[in-house]
Amino acid sequence: MHDESSNQPGQSGQAAEPGNPARRNFMKTSALASLAGAAGLALAACGRNGEHAGVDGDEHEDKRRHEKGEHAAASDHVPPGQLDEYYGFWSGGQSGEVRLVGVPSMRELMRIPVFNPDFTIGWGVTNESKRVLGPNFPPGGDCHHPHMSQTDGHYDGRYIFINDKAHTRVARIRCDVMRTDRITEVPNVQAIHGLRVQRAPRTGYVFANGEFLVPAPNDGRDLEDPKKYQTMFSALDGDTMEVAWQVLVDGNLDNTEADYAGKYAISTCYNSEGGMDLPSTMQAERDWAVVFDIARIEAAVKKGDFKTIGDSKVPVLDGRHGSSFTLYIPIPKNPHGINASPDGKYVVANGKLSPTVTVMEWSRIDDWFAGKLKDPRDTVVAEPELGLGPLHTAYDGRGNGYTTLFIDSQIAKWNIADAIAAHDGKKVNYLRQKIDVAYQPGHCHTSMGETRDADGKWLVSLNKFSKDRFLPTGPLHPDNDQLIDISGETMKLVADGPVYAEPHDVILLHRRLLIDKVKKSWERDDPFFAETVAMAKRHGVNVLSDSKVIREGRKVFVYMTSAAPIFGLGSFKVKKGDEVTVVVTNIDAVEDVSHGFCIVNYGINMEISPGATASATFTADKAGVFWYYCTFFCHAMHMEMSGRMLVEA
Amino acid sequence: MHDESSNQPGQSGQAAEPGNPARRNFMKTSALASLAGAAGLALAACGRNGEHAGVDGDEHEDKRRHEKGEHAAASDHVPPGQLDEYYGFWSGGQSGEVRLVGVPSMRELMRIPVFNPDFTIGWGVTNESKRVLGPNFPPGGDCHHPHMSQTDGHYDGRYIFINDKAHTRVARIRCDVMRTDRITEVPNVQAIHGLRVQRAPRTGYVFANGEFLVPAPNDGRDLEDPKKYQTMFSALDGDTMEVAWQVLVDGNLDNTEADYAGKYAISTCYNSEGGMDLPSTMQAERDWAVVFDIARIEAAVKKGDFKTIGDSKVPVLDGRHGSSFTLYIPIPKNPHGINASPDGKYVVANGKLSPTVTVMEWSRIDDWFAGKLKDPRDTVVAEPELGLGPLHTAYDGRGNGYTTLFIDSQIAKWNIADAIAAHDGKKVNYLRQKIDVAYQPGHCHTSMGETRDADGKWLVSLNKFSKDRFLPTGPLHPDNDQLIDISGETMKLVADGPVYAEPHDVILLHRRLLIDKVKKSWERDDPFFAETVAMAKRHGVNVLSDSKVIREGRKVFVYMTSAAPIFGLGSFKVKKGDEVTVVVTNIDAVEDVSHGFCIVNYGINMEISPGATASATFTADKAGVFWYYCTFFCHAMHMEMSGRMLVEA
Repeated sequence: MHDESSNQPGQSGQAAEPGNPARRNFMKTSALASLAGAAGLALAACGRNGEHAGVDGDEHEDKRRHEKGEHAAASDHVPPGQLDEYYGFWSGGQSGEVRLVGVPSMRELMRIPVFNPDFTIGWGVTNESKRVLGPNFPPGGDCHHPHMSQTDGHYDGRYIFINDKAHTRVARIRCDVMRTDRITEVPNVQAIHGLRVQRAPRTGYVFANGEFLVPAPNDGRDLEDPKKYQTMFSALDGDTMEVAWQVLVDGNLDNTEADYAGKYAISTCYNSEGGMDLPSTMQAERDWAVVFDIARIEAAVKKGDFKTIGDSKVPVLDGRHGSSFTLYIPIPKNPHGINASPDGKYVVANGKLSPTVTVMEWSRIDDWFAGKLKDPRDTVVAEPELGLGPLHTAYDGRGNGYTTLFIDSQIAKWNIADAIAAHDGKKVNYLRQKIDVAYQPGHCHTSMGETRDADGKWLVSLNKFSKDRFLPTGPLHPDNDQLIDISGETMKLVADGPVYAEPHDVILLHRRLLIDKVKKSWERDDPFFAETVAMAKRHGVNVLSDSKVIREGRKVFVYMTSAAPIFGLGSFKVKKGDEVTVVVTNIDAVEDVSHGFCIVNYGINMEISPGATASATFTADKAGVFWYYCTFFCHAMHMEMSGRMLVEA
Repeated sequence: MHDESSNQPGQSGQAAEPGNPARRNFMKTSALASLAGAAGLALAACGRNGEHAGVDGDEHEDKRRHEKGEHAAASDHVPPGQLDEYYGFWSGGQSGEVRLVGVPSMRELMRIPVFNPDFTIGWGVTNESKRVLGPNFPPGGDCHHPHMSQTDGHYDGRYIFINDKAHTRVARIRCDVMRTDRITEVPNVQAIHGLRVQRAPRTGYVFANGEFLVPAPNDGRDLEDPKKYQTMFSALDGDTMEVAWQVLVDGNLDNTEADYAGKYAISTCYNSEGGMDLPSTMQAERDWAVVFDIARIEAAVKKGDFKTIGDSKVPVLDGRHGSSFTLYIPIPKNPHGINASPDGKYVVANGKLSPTVTVMEWSRIDDWFAGKLKDPRDTVVAEPELGLGPLHTAYDGRGNGYTTLFIDSQIAKWNIADAIAAHDGKKVNYLRQKIDVAYQPGHCHTSMGETRDADGKWLVSLNKFSKDRFLPTGPLHPDNDQLIDISGETMKLVADGPVYAEPHDVILLHRRLLIDKVKKSWERDDPFFAETVAMAKRHGVNVLSDSKVIREGRKVFVYMTSAAPIFGLGSFKVKKGDEVTVVVTNIDAVEDVSHGFCIVNYGINMEISPGATASATFTADKAGVFWYYCTFFCHAMHMEMSGRMLVEA
């Protein structure tokens, strides 16, 4: 389906020439070239990108600009000692973490363990992290969509929220310390996929899609009766991280989005058929997006117009077809991403198996809920055809959308106003440019592009395949997150970014929003370790000065300070079988002087950054001498920073 | 101790001017500036770098070159679609992983889980990974020193070996598939720190230092009698990964190294005093390096001149002072790194608390073992003074050493021949240049620098602190691995590289050594999943074509293929309490089309790259419908690639 030799429109500076490393060997052997794939399925009929009437004009425009030498690409180069201009929060996908990346350098600045045990900081080892992870936490998570809390449509620098599809959870990261502080398991549904935040008046709600259809309660009943399966849209309270309410819907849910006025959320549904296998999910030419009217839902909750399921106390409302607080808007076909434009006017659903994106106007959604429209499709103001496999759209704040075309391996830049004019029958070309990406893009994201402050400087295309863009890494390849300069009229590819699987989504925010809010050391009254400090207080221990051992029956509490290059205790003694809790407080007041505390052969490691207290509890199940040592190189005599746990037989 | 305003010699293009971001705020608040630190310890007396007689000459030479504009720095920029020239294998430190990094772009190409559970590929989840990790594997590891197998002093592309200090283990990574295939727990010692490979005739042995002194056996005896504590030097067989022999030594061991002839290994000792606390480890002005004569050790093993300890069958030889197969060479003071020069002639111990490095000549070590020398110090041919806190030395293959100065936050370039001449009393300047790094370097490594093929192009300085070199990331800061061009006469800083804690060490090898050896898909007869395929065969299942369920009592075996976008089974049914083994085989023959298999709310995720078979075993302890889905975005209909596990109550 993909012809290397075809004359592709709108490519700026990276033509698909044979031997051009920009497209090296692409698709020659790729099964993806055939959407029909192993299953022998038919694809929704749609034109090839070269066949779009509007493209030729764009090609000429691009050529003209190119000839005039307009807009040299910005650079990803950040000289030594200089700071990146943007923070990127990258989903870590199946790794279960969130990654902090500098943009434009694309350097990974920090990993933030979320759902993943991480020995580096003792995530899953320390008591402080176990309080967040909960008892019997699973071995990981599958993160997709990181989004920052907002106030009036602006990033407010408080929290990042992220989903776990693998274990039906939502987590929150504190941006002041860049650490996960809450994880909530969402009841009554299975697999949280789409996740977004309420933009106004503030976050407020965190919206979370339950993807898969399951019986309710899912306790073994109705296994073989899929007609009784169901799923829900959930709203968490971003402050308490409790689930505020859930809305039963028709069809399973994919991605979600919120408006800029604080009135609506909207989710795509890729399986309106309620199918249980692949062919049946592709029967309908149109699935839908479902809009949730928040005020009406809150009113219904207040009125008690809900039920609960099983042990859960979460109010569950019925938002299926016929409900007064939902609106089902037919969208072609198996739509995936959904993205609100930063002018606050539109929201775009991306067709996936249709070559189109569907533009809806929020004011028309107002009209529908006010009873002024008869047909849900009357909320649609444009449905531009962009190419094969449109998945997600980002915005530049100048009226343009940038849509990833998974199958075409391109990003299409298009103008919203022109698309609406074309939909109205005017003869205008809404397509501005297409640029090749390498390869198969999923999400794309623009700098500040999901807020009122969209600044149209950078776009990141998160490509699922890298093929031969990097040195071979074995059967598992990195993804390729490409950086594209969108500050001028034409998109310019700036850098390839290899990444460990699989950063579905990112957000890019200007450093001004965070740089002064991020703490460089812990404050002593931080809630993250307050429970541990309170325990010390009950033991009469001042963790800032005391290094001592307290025994309560078979429980032993070992308190010590750390200050480079010495732990407050050079040794301590316990008995085999004791339950031991070690509490270490870093009293170095110096930025960047983190300590670690590792007990050899005991599976214990904790990171203790300046000002922090960390603790771990374990059973001393092996007799002998076990050294503990500092794992963060803190001093010229770091190697000598150690001590002995003596476990009596 | 560190004066920002002082005129520091040899800095090329990055003067310590106020406000210069290259040294922004450095040391103003750093406790590291005071080596005395919290413990109030005295530092071995040593000159400031500006006081070295030889430096002025170097400064003039550097100035001359600078004025002539010689040697513009090479770039870290690798344009989109171009490949890096070097593979870097980066230790992941406390993360427990190894990272594959492209150089000069410094982009992380791939993570290789080693000691760390990793949900991305199901490391710690799949049966195949559990066979490597062993039963009851700990929650992580602390990696330090990755080294590639060699043949005749050249990298041979077979394996990477790496230590786990936290759990006294050594792991091996297969470079053809970039996956860990063996992990060995080393008996009789505690905390494997230093690790190197036998260079000739081949690897052969993997040498591993036991760092901490413990009783033997360490079962609760002699807890309070440190005089009875001991440690050992271990040699693993790189082919079988079994421990071949161990040598009891005096003092605990730090780093290790091997010669180019295959005759010796040598380890530094930072605690010849056998101290149990910090002050006592600093009593002696000289500690030592201990040399191991491999042929004599092998002969002793053959002769049966060894004992065994406890349950371990590993031969333990006595190599303490007086042994015929060890040589203790006094080295000032608490020496840390030890590095053999690529000409095969010298080995350099780095003084840490002494401003010197100690150069020993292998041929003189030959002489000593042949009885031709009386004083072990006669093996020393130079002891150049370089600056404060020398930790590790790397080589350019042109006769120069590059030594990290932890306390000075610099790298000193010096000439080996000139240092030897100076030691002989000649008035020569061995110092070539010092360059500031940011900040506190530990290891440094040059391209191909630990082989006969040292090519003197790149040096990476692994700095423990980044302070304010990057956007704030919270109390925990990234390390900063800086890339330095050493291809010309003067070192040039090219890039800052933020990294997640804590890559102690790296190796850099030219891509020509690996690019054709790395497999882009799995071969069906790969040993990594051979046991799983054999199980299928016993069940009469052809994993490449069969998707079926086999029940044996309460054990259920679920075999299915995966081919984008469909699993071979759309659903399967088990009973609550069954032990379920799911085996998935990726029959997509297409490079980069990896699949994932995740069961929601069951803690299961596996990566199945092209050609692979992966399996996981778990108890179906919850009744209900549980969807499984593909976690690696593989196709336009990836979202629809799912199925149901029906668990009957």
